[in-house]
Amino acid sequence: MSRFWSPVVQTLTPYTPGEQPQMQRLVKLNTNESPYGPSPKALAAIDGQNNEGLRLYPDPEGTALKQAIAKLHGLDPKQVFIGNGSDEVLAHVFAGLLKQNKPVHFPDITYSFYPVYCKLFGIDYKVVPLGKEFEINLADYKTPNGGIIFPNPNAPTGRSITRSEIESLLSQNKDSVLVIDEAYVDYGTESCIPLLRGSDCPENLLVVHTLSKSRALAGLRVGFAVGHPALIEGLERVKNSFNSYPLGRLAQAGAIAAIEDQAHLEQSSAKVMQTRSKLVDDLNTLGFETLPSTANFIFTRHPQHAGTKLYQALRDRGIIVRHFKLPRIEEFLRITIGTNEQSGELVAALKEILA
Amino acid sequence: MSRFWSPVVQTLTPYTPGEQPQMQRLVKLNTNESPYGPSPKALAAIDGQNNEGLRLYPDPEGTALKQAIAKLHGLDPKQVFIGNGSDEVLAHVFAGLLKQNKPVHFPDITYSFYPVYCKLFGIDYKVVPLGKEFEINLADYKTPNGGIIFPNPNAPTGRSITRSEIESLLSQNKDSVLVIDEAYVDYGTESCIPLLRGSDCPENLLVVHTLSKSRALAGLRVGFAVGHPALIEGLERVKNSFNSYPLGRLAQAGAIAAIEDQAHLEQSSAKVMQTRSKLVDDLNTLGFETLPSTANFIFTRHPQHAGTKLYQALRDRGIIVRHFKLPRIEEFLRITIGTNEQSGELVAALKEILA
Repeated sequence: MSRFWSPVVQTLTPYTPGEQPQMQRLVKLNTNESPYGPSPKALAAIDGQNNEGLRLYPDPEGTALKQAIAKLHGLDPKQVFIGNGSDEVLAHVFAGLLKQNKPVHFPDITYSFYPVYCKLFGIDYKVVPLGKEFEINLADYKTPNGGIIFPNPNAPTGRSITRSEIESLLSQNKDSVLVIDEAYVDYGTESCIPLLRGSDCPENLLVVHTLSKSRALAGLRVGFAVGHPALIEGLERVKNSFNSYPLGRLAQAGAIAAIEDQAHLEQSSAKVMQTRSKLVDDLNTLGFETLPSTANFIFTRHPQHAGTKLYQALRDRGIIVRHFKLPRIEEFLRITIGTNEQSGELVAALKEILA
Repeated sequence: MSRFWSPVVQTLTPYTPGEQPQMQRLVKLNTNESPYGPSPKALAAIDGQNNEGLRLYPDPEGTALKQAIAKLHGLDPKQVFIGNGSDEVLAHVFAGLLKQNKPVHFPDITYSFYPVYCKLFGIDYKVVPLGKEFEINLADYKTPNGGIIFPNPNAPTGRSITRSEIESLLSQNKDSVLVIDEAYVDYGTESCIPLLRGSDCPENLLVVHTLSKSRALAGLRVGFAVGHPALIEGLERVKNSFNSYPLGRLAQAGAIAAIEDQAHLEQSSAKVMQTRSKLVDDLNTLGFETLPSTANFIFTRHPQHAGTKLYQALRDRGIIVRHFKLPRIEEFLRITIGTNEQSGELVAALKEILA
């Protein structure tokens, strides 16, 4: 605490990311990273920029990266905003689009960074409880609001809703922005990006993506948002009042090559989905109850074993998963889908713990 | 413009960085980049991280980088804050330390991002005019304020003040934070960092650095601030409410190696200072009036030739410098110090233009 802090700083409760332990020989299933490496083309592109040219500023607009994203998704580059990880993109979304006279709405159980942004930017918010099965009920969002945001699939539950459900919400939510955070979309969830194509692009739908999960570049820090050009222009104004150059030369080059290598993403994601399916079966056999997941993680609990104890017992065996000491979900573990081998180690450890 | 923007977005006038033209065969003297490449050790360190490990998040705290900076400057790692370029660091400084009930003070002619941050964060500010010779008169800052910030050397003038002058201001400015933006300190300016060492570290002095200039890593995006641990803690709270991972694995690795290679910085800076000295002499011979500079750029005007015309005539010859269409300084050119060869081309072009 210091008397020199701005008054708002006293009120902040920062977000706590999953730990990045330095232990060796760890089964790290706590921060939803890809168990497979990034596209080799991304590494090669980074290598191609790792030279004397680093003395020069990067393109502040990220024009080539925006073009690559637009091309992949059938959009215009003016519909693309890029940032230093989707967390930075989300920060600008809260500051630039969701700070309104009415409260922004999001689920009670969701990405815990949302209320943190609200406190930082002085945004009023209302949490909308998930249903009994931890599902998002869009009917609960059809009230006056200053914006709506949720991940699809939701985190940490892993549950998703369909594009047509979201379209239906959109048709009734005309006066505020609807933000779909698709960080985990590439493991079996319907993306809303097709709704943004062509002249019918809604004025108030924004979709946020990251390269940290399915593109296996968490270490590079790139995220983006796509939507109507007027929404993007608002985000650009905020970004250009905050930091002209959020993405360096290496990040831009690596991201372009990763975006262009869709085959690599599809192969990695297919493997993750296969492993997920088997893991859910194995956990089921052990008596776990797992929410239906279309993410690269699952959310699971055991009726006879407390979440805290399971978390700690796994940790003692060098297996790190995520546990949230929060109402409604404290019995759950959020487990990142790793390789088949890691899944095997996890299941073997759980068998031992439950025995 | 969109009705979906947050109200503040309508009021923003974003910062405009110097252009990064795609033209080949350009003498680029407009954005104060180093004419010499970064430390080869930085490139090697980046190479060492450009692998499958990019699938993993970086250390959110940047612990090793903070240790390297602390070691170089004789500080404790708790006195170090790091960010995605010094622009991001400055953004968090404005939000976290300079948003107070009284206006923040800075020069009328200075880094033009300062008023942009103020508008973004809703901070009241007062500009304090530079003296006749474009010098900062610290006596003018000895009035109640919510914070003081200026670059030393100032930009775009290149003029600096001494550490003892700043100490004197600090001794009379006890109730707000004094931020010294030392982006260009490594070309003959006294740094204020020695004031921060040991138990006498003032509670309200913060010094901001970048790796984009003297360390020739503008393309990597790394900056830092050093000061009292309580100030740093305030910045960490803002950062952790905005983006957990502003610096990726490549940026952290490259920055550590660059910080550790002080000899490389000293050699590059010495060459820049030699070139600057000769350039000032050559321009003097041509009738230019150049402010005394301790930066890697000079601020110069010709009594008989308009700034706009000179800027355009140089551009027509493939030489890009910076020109600001602003009161008091519209006759000036801000010229980055390049190699001796680039200086030679510049002087030859100016001779031709003036003839």
